[in-house]
Amino acid sequence: MSLQDHTTTVHQAAEAAWDAFATYGRLPLSARAALLRTIAAQIEDLGDALLHTCAAETNLPEVRLRNERARTLFQLRSYADACEQGDWLEARIDTADTGRTPPKPDIRKLLVPLGPVAVFGSSNFPFAYSTAGGDTASALAAGCPVIVRAHFAHAQTSAMVAGAIEKAVAACGFHPGIFAHITEPGNEIGRALVMHPRIKAVGFTGSLAGGKAIWAYANERREPIPVFAEMSSVNPVYLLPQKLQSDPTALATQLAASITLGAGQFCTNPGLLIGIDGPALQTFAETLGQAIQQTLPVAMLHGGIADNYRAKRDLVLAEQGVETLATASVTATDIQDMPTVATVSGAAFLQNPQLHTEVFGPFSLLVRCANSAEMLQVATAMEGQLTATMMATEEDIKHSGALTAAIQNHCGRFIVNGVPTGVEVCLSMHHGGPWPSTTDSRFTSVGADAIKRFARPLCFQNCPDRLLPDALSDGNPLGLWRTVNNVLTQDPIAHG
Amino acid sequence: MSLQDHTTTVHQAAEAAWDAFATYGRLPLSARAALLRTIAAQIEDLGDALLHTCAAETNLPEVRLRNERARTLFQLRSYADACEQGDWLEARIDTADTGRTPPKPDIRKLLVPLGPVAVFGSSNFPFAYSTAGGDTASALAAGCPVIVRAHFAHAQTSAMVAGAIEKAVAACGFHPGIFAHITEPGNEIGRALVMHPRIKAVGFTGSLAGGKAIWAYANERREPIPVFAEMSSVNPVYLLPQKLQSDPTALATQLAASITLGAGQFCTNPGLLIGIDGPALQTFAETLGQAIQQTLPVAMLHGGIADNYRAKRDLVLAEQGVETLATASVTATDIQDMPTVATVSGAAFLQNPQLHTEVFGPFSLLVRCANSAEMLQVATAMEGQLTATMMATEEDIKHSGALTAAIQNHCGRFIVNGVPTGVEVCLSMHHGGPWPSTTDSRFTSVGADAIKRFARPLCFQNCPDRLLPDALSDGNPLGLWRTVNNVLTQDPIAHG
Repeated sequence: MSLQDHTTTVHQAAEAAWDAFATYGRLPLSARAALLRTIAAQIEDLGDALLHTCAAETNLPEVRLRNERARTLFQLRSYADACEQGDWLEARIDTADTGRTPPKPDIRKLLVPLGPVAVFGSSNFPFAYSTAGGDTASALAAGCPVIVRAHFAHAQTSAMVAGAIEKAVAACGFHPGIFAHITEPGNEIGRALVMHPRIKAVGFTGSLAGGKAIWAYANERREPIPVFAEMSSVNPVYLLPQKLQSDPTALATQLAASITLGAGQFCTNPGLLIGIDGPALQTFAETLGQAIQQTLPVAMLHGGIADNYRAKRDLVLAEQGVETLATASVTATDIQDMPTVATVSGAAFLQNPQLHTEVFGPFSLLVRCANSAEMLQVATAMEGQLTATMMATEEDIKHSGALTAAIQNHCGRFIVNGVPTGVEVCLSMHHGGPWPSTTDSRFTSVGADAIKRFARPLCFQNCPDRLLPDALSDGNPLGLWRTVNNVLTQDPIAHG
Repeated sequence: MSLQDHTTTVHQAAEAAWDAFATYGRLPLSARAALLRTIAAQIEDLGDALLHTCAAETNLPEVRLRNERARTLFQLRSYADACEQGDWLEARIDTADTGRTPPKPDIRKLLVPLGPVAVFGSSNFPFAYSTAGGDTASALAAGCPVIVRAHFAHAQTSAMVAGAIEKAVAACGFHPGIFAHITEPGNEIGRALVMHPRIKAVGFTGSLAGGKAIWAYANERREPIPVFAEMSSVNPVYLLPQKLQSDPTALATQLAASITLGAGQFCTNPGLLIGIDGPALQTFAETLGQAIQQTLPVAMLHGGIADNYRAKRDLVLAEQGVETLATASVTATDIQDMPTVATVSGAAFLQNPQLHTEVFGPFSLLVRCANSAEMLQVATAMEGQLTATMMATEEDIKHSGALTAAIQNHCGRFIVNGVPTGVEVCLSMHHGGPWPSTTDSRFTSVGADAIKRFARPLCFQNCPDRLLPDALSDGNPLGLWRTVNNVLTQDPIAHG
């Protein structure tokens, strides 16, 4: 397919989305929520055929896919609830004061949708962060039409889900431009999509290189647009002395399971373990090594991911001072992973930025610090991360104020005595973090606050009640929580 | 001063700010609020000497400066109140459910400060959007140290206000790195400040060229950072037929006053008036012309602004199809403004992007549309704006659904039957808008929501109560509104 054709495909989808935005962006919250619920129902109607197609494309086990589908349906339905409940609109009203000099006008504000959104799904979550995943669900909840760029690694799955979304849009009687599915391969079409003037925001989940490229395209535009790219994270786990001492074997077993979960193909995979050298860390390292050795290799998402995993892992293993602790003892095929753990001194880690980069897959690097001062140095030198974990007793924590602060400075989610894999879908979740883990640390891609990525405030001054959106009108017909003259309330505006 | 010296100045201030951030970013909200209130008191203590210094530097009349100082103090105090009240933290809690499979962890989230903020104040608001202006007040409220790049056009004023801030920091007993004032001239030092790795966000109010340059620097960094630049807006005013018909003279008089207010040196100056050709628009144009002719030239902020005003105005006047309607009849001196209005057909306006750009000063272009369809085309072609105004009767509005939507698409604040000049400081205000009016349409620079520009969410998973910030701890000691298990409440978390 020629470049011209690519441009035409994108252009048609983008213009249809813009046309749809004029009506969809102004539909009541309840109508948007109905669409999300209908999409969930249509995906359910695809039945197990969807799971089988996806398993064949991604090598992911059916039980995992069944759970991921459940998560995807939960996301659609819980974002529908959040959309309708309307707290995310941040409705604010300051009433007029005509007696003041100068008179104070009536001013009201709420969030409105940005416009058509381009979504680049991830390969590692073919349901939950792909075609009808978190980005699509939150953009639709915000009132934005969506154009999905299908992921080549699960093209048929994506087509089936796209069909379900299209059916849902039709069943709701909405404008068909609300959703489009672009299936042509090649980077050029992705660029054309991001650069199209009708596109007003981008959601992306994938590699650092991919996310940075899309972000750069968005900034080259005449009108730059926000890009929410989730890119790269090594998710450091800090092993504090007393906790490590208390049960190094249990910690190692817990972390080995997290490292190898789903062939390590999670953005929150713990790729870095940081402890202070000594007998406890030695025991930890040995147990971890044994667990990794005993892990059976499993097929990764596709050959490219497996090749990339091995190449990046081997780069790290070849760096000065890095020693392999263990590799799975069963030889893997080309498409299978090969769980590996390695170790390096804190001093070598601090000097070598290469060791700070993500190896996507079941790999983790154990950093042996000389003492707690070096651990603090490591935490201070860390780049932005989606998560950071502290394995610590209450006593450890009491003596670690500076370390805790340094850790919190570089992450979006701070976990105590847990593993970073497993991202709960709830309003309190923050799945995001400082650069380079994402392009915008201020927004989450998981949980209903993700809706706010695709909206901006619009302020109404001196606007007659019937020109106002329902969310801001005097009577508060939607029963929203609104901040009226600086006080949160569900009351209507009283005139008198 | 050499480049090396510049770099040293910036480096020292940025490192001190980073050092201060470790403590300041973790102070209770009440302590940050106390600092803002102490700054207000210290500025008040400067008395009328501050006004006289500023008047001499900026040519702004004392009465205007007195009002602007009052606004600045109000901002500091009202942001202090908002900071302490804590709604902006967006505290969210989802409690654990250990009975679920898999168990649901306890997850909590709130906004935390980004880190040191660089502030580039504006020339046109030497108090309210400069040294202790909205950006500084909201960054300090968020918990971020601030480094102000003094504006050359009111350097002494800036030094006096900086002195007041430094006194306030000392009076509160806080780390002196919380605030720094960089006075060296030249663009290179501004670039060094934006590029410094310790700086985590930038606030800017000024020209399109300046804002874009700073935004580009921020994106060149190894770790790109958010830039909140308020850059350029022509603030279109749409004159709807029935409203125009009903009293063209009154409308013209009201708008002439807004166009010439403060020598037109407001970012919300109405630079574009859009009506439908006919006798009423003719009357409007004549009245507007007469009012402008009778306006006495006044001194602008500085020679550069006056030169720039004339040059940009003359560029527009030289464009094809543009006719001058009126210029002030009294000849202006070099530093004085020269209020001017011109007119052009809708067709010519649509074809000529040059006519869409801001002329900073008392200039406005009246666009005569052939009919309402052409007015809709003009609204659709409009770039992003801080404000857009509709002069309209209820009947006009009833027939203008598409126009209203197009207008709301391109602005941050939608005003009905008012003038855009005059930006109320309140929570409902949105002073921001789509590119190129600002670099980030999702955030306001006026009103307490401005605090949120300088913060990002941090999520705590499975975190012991005493490691949590007060805002998230079970007992809710701050009495905040928090969303607990999806419900807004001020209640503490019950265990049982």
